[in-house]
Amino acid sequence: MDYFNVAILGCGTVGSGVAKILIDMPEELAVRAGKKIQLVKIVDLYPKKAAANYQIPMQLFCGGGKDLLRDEATRCIDEIIADPNIHLVVETIGGTSDYLYGIMHRILSAGKHLVTANKAMLAEKGGELFRLARQKNVLLGYEASVCGAIPIIKTIRESFTGDKILEISGILNGTSNYILSKMQHEGLDFPTALKNAQEAGYAEADPTLDINGGDAAHKLTILIRLAFGANIDYFSLYKEGIDQISREDIDFANEMDCSIKLICYARQMDGKIFAAVKPMMVKNDNFLSKVNGATNCVEVKNLYSGKHYFVGKGAGSLETASSVVSDIVFAAKYQGMAISMPDLKDFELVEAGSIVLPYNITFTTEDRPGITGLVTTAIGAQNINIDTVSHNRHNKDKAYFSVVTMPCTLNQVKQAIDQIKQKAPGLLLEEPKIIPILY
Amino acid sequence: MDYFNVAILGCGTVGSGVAKILIDMPEELAVRAGKKIQLVKIVDLYPKKAAANYQIPMQLFCGGGKDLLRDEATRCIDEIIADPNIHLVVETIGGTSDYLYGIMHRILSAGKHLVTANKAMLAEKGGELFRLARQKNVLLGYEASVCGAIPIIKTIRESFTGDKILEISGILNGTSNYILSKMQHEGLDFPTALKNAQEAGYAEADPTLDINGGDAAHKLTILIRLAFGANIDYFSLYKEGIDQISREDIDFANEMDCSIKLICYARQMDGKIFAAVKPMMVKNDNFLSKVNGATNCVEVKNLYSGKHYFVGKGAGSLETASSVVSDIVFAAKYQGMAISMPDLKDFELVEAGSIVLPYNITFTTEDRPGITGLVTTAIGAQNINIDTVSHNRHNKDKAYFSVVTMPCTLNQVKQAIDQIKQKAPGLLLEEPKIIPILY
Repeated sequence: MDYFNVAILGCGTVGSGVAKILIDMPEELAVRAGKKIQLVKIVDLYPKKAAANYQIPMQLFCGGGKDLLRDEATRCIDEIIADPNIHLVVETIGGTSDYLYGIMHRILSAGKHLVTANKAMLAEKGGELFRLARQKNVLLGYEASVCGAIPIIKTIRESFTGDKILEISGILNGTSNYILSKMQHEGLDFPTALKNAQEAGYAEADPTLDINGGDAAHKLTILIRLAFGANIDYFSLYKEGIDQISREDIDFANEMDCSIKLICYARQMDGKIFAAVKPMMVKNDNFLSKVNGATNCVEVKNLYSGKHYFVGKGAGSLETASSVVSDIVFAAKYQGMAISMPDLKDFELVEAGSIVLPYNITFTTEDRPGITGLVTTAIGAQNINIDTVSHNRHNKDKAYFSVVTMPCTLNQVKQAIDQIKQKAPGLLLEEPKIIPILY
Repeated sequence: MDYFNVAILGCGTVGSGVAKILIDMPEELAVRAGKKIQLVKIVDLYPKKAAANYQIPMQLFCGGGKDLLRDEATRCIDEIIADPNIHLVVETIGGTSDYLYGIMHRILSAGKHLVTANKAMLAEKGGELFRLARQKNVLLGYEASVCGAIPIIKTIRESFTGDKILEISGILNGTSNYILSKMQHEGLDFPTALKNAQEAGYAEADPTLDINGGDAAHKLTILIRLAFGANIDYFSLYKEGIDQISREDIDFANEMDCSIKLICYARQMDGKIFAAVKPMMVKNDNFLSKVNGATNCVEVKNLYSGKHYFVGKGAGSLETASSVVSDIVFAAKYQGMAISMPDLKDFELVEAGSIVLPYNITFTTEDRPGITGLVTTAIGAQNINIDTVSHNRHNKDKAYFSVVTMPCTLNQVKQAIDQIKQKAPGLLLEEPKIIPILY
């Protein structure tokens, strides 16, 4: 049986998990891959720390286990890239630096398979890397980059090949889902729930990308390219995070039998892509409303086979590592045959303001007669049909009420609000909250 | 680009769907497979009827479109098997006849790929067919045989390759789930719900295999072989259907915040397989309780990546056909490399009576004092810890009550019931209902 030799760059949360699985189950992997998969080298600046969790043998580390300076690590990486006996490199360093981009580029240029969990790099600068992988006929594996353990990449690539994907949506960021679940089910406010997520290890010390929708948008960008073969730009994708969601929004949603979720959404139609990352009010009889905590869920709607849901762990050391290892097995087994990403075509990315959805608009106004009429007249003047006006609350001198529209565009909603502001300056005490509804 | 030629045997619900998809999207399939997939021949006794739904061209049918006698159809099949230009045969005839087994055997013997939705044949007599496929280095594709559209077979085979599967469970029969959902949510009794399912096209005129757990057990047998590499005998698998579930059982379950579902369950431990098909009371905060109607759900618990849920359509013409086509693409793309089923090892199939689970036991007794003491004493005497005794109802002279046990074996429960019958003959007015609980 042939050998298939693997090196790991960056032995942190995910990289160390990959090392553990490769060391723990060599016989099973050999049967599945038809080759003996061997972990031959690990590069990490701090081997002792990296090896601690899973007792990874020190001799696997470049430098024999001593801490490395950056230059020394770079030399180790260069040796790996130059080594004809290393067939695949796992990149679990992370980040989008030019330094790392250069390394990934050189790995592929050397004709080696590359497996990565680096969604940011692939979403922001992936195009050239995928082109290079195809040109060199090697696998650029990224199962672990979208929703950790959920095998959505290979499912789209290898299983949904007898169908056409029409829509992809889902809950792709576990941290924000954890925070929203805590707010909904334990009555916490946003800052407390965020702190809670950080203490539980779900949110980073700098949680910006989780909170502002950036991480979810990275994943959605990758899914759009794979599922629709659509060449879209990550930076043009509309993204809005959960940092503006308040206890009141959660309560309003609850009264409407909805749960607020950070929803990723993409649909292809007539050569156009409609896509956004946005908090939405999900009706409680929709499956997505049942996905709580740090769990992820991907919903795929196909032309022939209808709706599918994939639910699983979106993060975690061994969870994500198991996806990396599945890509290693795939590369070893189907060497030279695997296609990482289809040829991408240019699609028009529809401006988020013109996507048609039903909206819930929550107004905070002065508490006096005539306001409902004024607000609903302005909405009707924009050709928006109103579904319900409800959930009035009065609190001191303020009135809170929400208007649920029939499907319309965000631009229409915004124009209606502008008109209200013009007609009755000072009436709106806060900027209205505009949240789409997912039935 | 090479051609990859396909013939379809049996152009009914699934077969005609396969023909439609192959005819509808040749360009997409060619890109995905790297070969031009061509439908070159269809064999069906009644072409006009078979072609009607999707306007399949008559000239594709053996005999040019006229009805065939069985002997004529057999000759057509023989010609297909002998034709070196046909690379793959789709078997969508169905059934477990020796005649069909012979055809499948000859297709594989001729070195052709074989794709089938025939769960009964694979579960009952599949062993030799899989051995033959491996020997001939061809794909025996069966994605469509387990849960229609849900891509669980390729997920286990190609995606869960960096992990170990510990448990598989789920709702694998859409018809019984449809009936149970109707009983739970619309208050129907079993015969009415069954009739309803037949009218809606979910249940066959002879619904035996759906109702008695046989169909679910076919699927579970295939999953156990694939996931655990365990050579188990379909006929030895414990199966119990939903035909004994009454309105009262559903109501009891409801009071305990549970839904009754027909659950397939398999776990591997220490070289043993614990497996059964059985109605269970599923706690309403368990994801499986949210799967309603004809939808299927497969739950996989992995060593490293934890729990996964796969939800989708378990049946339907185009739904199931899309899975068949995905196997055709796989065979065309990875010709000669695909492994249909791992080498199977003998595992001990643990007798269902010794599987440890918490049980709900519902008693119907005379309505007089002292019965609770007598019943719970008998249960305690079998070393079963009791969780709760509750839900008493009194109806004329009868008392209904249920005992929830801590995890124990079905054998223990049955011994306790035997003891009650011995100690107080005539006390139990009906045979107690014993239903496991899934938390």
